[in-house]
Amino acid sequence: MSSSNNPTVEAAVLRANARFYRAFSRGDFVAMNELWAQHAPVTCLHPGSTVLRGRVNVLGAWRQIIADPPPFEMRCEKPEVQVYGPTAVVLCYEGNGEKAAHLAATNVFVLEENEWRMVHHQAGPLARVVASDAPPNPPSKPPPAAMN
Amino acid sequence: MSSSNNPTVEAAVLRANARFYRAFSRGDFVAMNELWAQHAPVTCLHPGSTVLRGRVNVLGAWRQIIADPPPFEMRCEKPEVQVYGPTAVVLCYEGNGEKAAHLAATNVFVLEENEWRMVHHQAGPLARVVASDAPPNPPSKPPPAAMN
Repeated sequence: MSSSNNPTVEAAVLRANARFYRAFSRGDFVAMNELWAQHAPVTCLHPGSTVLRGRVNVLGAWRQIIADPPPFEMRCEKPEVQVYGPTAVVLCYEGNGEKAAHLAATNVFVLEENEWRMVHHQAGPLARVVASDAPPNPPSKPPPAAMN
Repeated sequence: MSSSNNPTVEAAVLRANARFYRAFSRGDFVAMNELWAQHAPVTCLHPGSTVLRGRVNVLGAWRQIIADPPPFEMRCEKPEVQVYGPTAVVLCYEGNGEKAAHLAATNVFVLEENEWRMVHHQAGPLARVVASDAPPNPPSKPPPAAMN
C-alpha cells in the first residue's frame, strides 16, 4: 500500500491528535473516552510501563492519569503525520507546563465511523529535551501609537 | 474500520516482526533494508532519540547500529499483533543476550507489494525488566528408565 499525501486527511488526523492532548491537559475523561476507538482494539504503552490492552485497561489507566493529580498541561510539539490508507501514525514530542519537551510519542489512529480515533499510544523519555515550537519569549509589542 | 482477527494475517505480520529482530541480531543490513517499506514513508524513534524520518535517515541509523558494535542478540518477547486492514501494530518487549527484557516496542507494518513491511519502530525503556517467555529454568528431565 502507499501512503496518502492528502492535506485534508492529514489535517483531520492532526485535529484528532490535538484532541488527545486537549483532553489530557483538561482532565476531560469524556473527551478522552470518545477519542479512543470504540470497535478496533486499543493498546497503550505509558513511559516505563508494560502493555495495556483493551478499552477497559487503556481507558481505566487514562481515567486515573488525568484525574489524579488534577489536570496539568501536556503539550504536543512538532506533530507530524503519516497516513497509510485508513490508518495514520502521528509522531510528536510531549512536554509539561513551562518545561521543554522530554518525551517522544507514537500515536496511531484509525478511521472508524468516519472519525479518526486513537488505537495506540506509546511515549518514552528523550535523552535530551527538545526545544519548544514556541519562541522562547513572546515577541515584544510595538508601543501604542498614543504613547509616542 | 474494524480490525482483522485473521490468524493467517496475524501470523504473516508476526513473521515480518521476527525478521526484524533476526536482521537486528545477525547484523544483516540487507535483510533489514528489505524489511522496511520501499514506498510508504518510514520513521523511527530509538530509545532516547528524536524522530528519524525517511529511508535514508532510518536505514542509515540501522546500518550503524547493527554494524558497530558487532551483532548482538536483540530478543523480541511476548509479541502481540493488532491488524487494522492493510496496517498492523506489533507490541513486544526487547532484551539483549541473557538479560531480561528492558525495552517496550511499537512496530508498525503496512502491506506493500503483498508483503508486510515495517514503516515505524519506537522502543523505550521499561521501569522494571519483564521476565522472559522462557521458563527461568529448563524443566528437569525424568531419569532414564535404564538408571532406575
